[in-house]
Amino acid sequence: MWTLCGDSELAEGSIWEAFDKAGYYQLSNLTAILDINRLGQRGETEYGWTTDTYRRRIEAFGCFPIVIDGHDVTAIDRAFGSALSATGKPTVIIAKTVKGKGFSEIENKDGWHGKALPPDMAERAIKELGGVRNLKVKVAKPESGKPAIAHTDGPVTLPTYKKEDKVATRKAYGDALLALAAIPDVVAMDGEVSNSTHADEFAKAHPERFFEIFIAEQQLLATAVGMSVCGYRPFASTFAAFFSRAYDFIRMAGISQANIRLVGSHAGVEIGQDGPSQMALEDLASLRAIHSSTVLYPSDPNQTAKLVRLMADREGIVYMRTTRGAYPTLYGPNETFKIGGSKVVRQSAKDKVTLIGAGVTLHNCLAAADTLAQKKIAARVIDLYSLKPIDVKTLKEAAKATRGRIVIVEDHYPEGGIAAAVLEALAQDPPAHVVHLAVRSLPTSGKPEELMNAAGISAKHIVAAATKLVQGK
Amino acid sequence: MWTLCGDSELAEGSIWEAFDKAGYYQLSNLTAILDINRLGQRGETEYGWTTDTYRRRIEAFGCFPIVIDGHDVTAIDRAFGSALSATGKPTVIIAKTVKGKGFSEIENKDGWHGKALPPDMAERAIKELGGVRNLKVKVAKPESGKPAIAHTDGPVTLPTYKKEDKVATRKAYGDALLALAAIPDVVAMDGEVSNSTHADEFAKAHPERFFEIFIAEQQLLATAVGMSVCGYRPFASTFAAFFSRAYDFIRMAGISQANIRLVGSHAGVEIGQDGPSQMALEDLASLRAIHSSTVLYPSDPNQTAKLVRLMADREGIVYMRTTRGAYPTLYGPNETFKIGGSKVVRQSAKDKVTLIGAGVTLHNCLAAADTLAQKKIAARVIDLYSLKPIDVKTLKEAAKATRGRIVIVEDHYPEGGIAAAVLEALAQDPPAHVVHLAVRSLPTSGKPEELMNAAGISAKHIVAAATKLVQGK
Repeated sequence: MWTLCGDSELAEGSIWEAFDKAGYYQLSNLTAILDINRLGQRGETEYGWTTDTYRRRIEAFGCFPIVIDGHDVTAIDRAFGSALSATGKPTVIIAKTVKGKGFSEIENKDGWHGKALPPDMAERAIKELGGVRNLKVKVAKPESGKPAIAHTDGPVTLPTYKKEDKVATRKAYGDALLALAAIPDVVAMDGEVSNSTHADEFAKAHPERFFEIFIAEQQLLATAVGMSVCGYRPFASTFAAFFSRAYDFIRMAGISQANIRLVGSHAGVEIGQDGPSQMALEDLASLRAIHSSTVLYPSDPNQTAKLVRLMADREGIVYMRTTRGAYPTLYGPNETFKIGGSKVVRQSAKDKVTLIGAGVTLHNCLAAADTLAQKKIAARVIDLYSLKPIDVKTLKEAAKATRGRIVIVEDHYPEGGIAAAVLEALAQDPPAHVVHLAVRSLPTSGKPEELMNAAGISAKHIVAAATKLVQGK
Repeated sequence: MWTLCGDSELAEGSIWEAFDKAGYYQLSNLTAILDINRLGQRGETEYGWTTDTYRRRIEAFGCFPIVIDGHDVTAIDRAFGSALSATGKPTVIIAKTVKGKGFSEIENKDGWHGKALPPDMAERAIKELGGVRNLKVKVAKPESGKPAIAHTDGPVTLPTYKKEDKVATRKAYGDALLALAAIPDVVAMDGEVSNSTHADEFAKAHPERFFEIFIAEQQLLATAVGMSVCGYRPFASTFAAFFSRAYDFIRMAGISQANIRLVGSHAGVEIGQDGPSQMALEDLASLRAIHSSTVLYPSDPNQTAKLVRLMADREGIVYMRTTRGAYPTLYGPNETFKIGGSKVVRQSAKDKVTLIGAGVTLHNCLAAADTLAQKKIAARVIDLYSLKPIDVKTLKEAAKATRGRIVIVEDHYPEGGIAAAVLEALAQDPPAHVVHLAVRSLPTSGKPEELMNAAGISAKHIVAAATKLVQGK
């Protein structure tokens, strides 16, 4: 496999995550070619033509560097030959080149980044370069491989959970991923937290299909995209907050039309004691805004397992947010779910208000509905487990049935999350009164229930908001 | 300056961006201490106790490594002493340690990440460690520095632009930043694209207050946060799309309550030929969702200059999106703007529909309003230059005046951007009919007007949407 890198981008940390992993996993079939032409967009790069700096770094990161004159065809040929024979290490060809070489007017000159030559200059360039020619240089190519595992479907037996049993959705993800191993081309990778995301169940049972990327989330994404390109079905997991470290890679995966599955655990203030640095509170906003993304947020282990099964066959960037804590199982193992669907978990002909939650806040909505029922206020409760695509029909029906009275509750900052998804979906025919409960200030560390209380997204806040809405205050 | 790093995190590319910049800029007053205890959250780290791997990498990245036994007090003392005398290079103390050392039940054992000892174990640990003691080890500390530049306000003379002159907002940013140099503690940094973001105007005039971070956006953010902590007022710029590379750093800057200013140029399909990898189409969603963030999106150079002035005094994470192309100057140099404000740029008593845009789409809204006027449809036009905080009052008045008929146009993916900001703001009392024009499919490369046409956010699409709304279809 060949990969071409510019010299400016060698300043990116992600490049060194890639060299590190290539070295660590001894990817001897990988050859990287670094074009060291000295000139970045704005001027000279950090290290110009000091190829020795690159050589020492490449070596220290476990790869085999070959420094050549990038204009010397014999040297190029020899380097590609060496790349084939090098064993146990990726090869990195550090090619010193001159930008615009052979055309004296721009050769090694600044100011030509991303610019086309004007027609007259182009003509002079062709002339100086010896006229129109067709040069073809053949070098030793890497062997073309084929996927180690064929793309086939296997019979998957999903885990099931008993109603009312308390099982965290992250645990259900681990169980379901293990079950998905029956599909031979499912592979998994994790950022050194598989004992928290529960990807370790798959890792232990199928070590040959699991890739430990350690704490290098950009490379976690890059690995998933690479696996997708090679025909595998990757599931990459880490804490939901840590996917923010790889946001550009997720963005580029969307643009590259890759098919990858991301599972982020430990979302929201619900994680409790670990504090705000570990709480994903902007993941729904940032992931919803990715081209081709699907965003799922289950509340129950049977639902999680069913959705994980659907993720395996879903194209694009498919994100699932899982929860740290264990909450009662709401659905039976035969309940069906679909991407783009939702569940009306409480309803009656007398519904006065609609409560919308997903994940942990669905449980808060259900507790609130119980209290409201005691106050003779019938509440419809919607489990909005699919945020993108979203179930517009069910939302519209609920809005109509409860005279436009809606309370939306999310364990997320107020911007771009569940409320935005609902409001965008209903923009053309909006509900009359929406109350939005979300995490509006910086959370601290504490017990999950303390933090949900402090954020104003607990059952009691939902009860208060719904009561006020129904009373028309 | 001391900084403490765990060994697991040495797999992060951002760590190597930091070592690289520390070495490149010869930060000899920086001492990093690496705690190499071998154990990550899930098990052994990538390189365990192989301190030589770390030593070679540190050396190759331009820093001065000292490998020590992290439990040897004399060695620690000597290392800190060496750190003071090392000149021209940052020092990195690579301390080999044993996790849980001194308590045989957990010493060097896996499975204790982030866990407190149960009370009985804690008692046995104290006993085995020799009882309750108060140890204090004094080592050579780095000299405490003070900011090179005092925090004072200078008289700023902002650049001004003539009405109808075509000036890109990114150019106005560069001009305004240069003017801000009159404030001594304003500093700037850029990710090797200052000739595009126009931060180069400041860089050329004040090289001692400009920091070239090259293409390492995580370090760009880290530098801005560090400068903020040291009492400077940092402005960091790159292409808006490339801030996604540093999203976790922005998130953490928000949590750390840093005061930084980010300016992202070349946003949306408007950039044209460079293609989707360079188009920020999710920046408004992702930046709005950051704790303590402010999100600004000017359409005009006089407005840009005024907002850049306000950014200098604004706390939190202040983001401005600028535009590549040049559009007519809409406002005079004496027009006032405020963070959280908006401008009603067209209005009459007969307004039938409200058009909301910001940045380039405001210009499209104005062109649409002209066409609509010819069709005898009076349109109110709102310049929503402040997306967070947002001007709820003006939005409500417009919604009321135009009977809830609103067209929102954004050069952004449909999720979490301008429409979401408006809908969230009006959730409790929503407008009756909102039409939302946004970039709904993957853009290609082309001329700006071609791409805006393809996305359905041009004046003609606004005209069509507004006409349909007014006709009640």
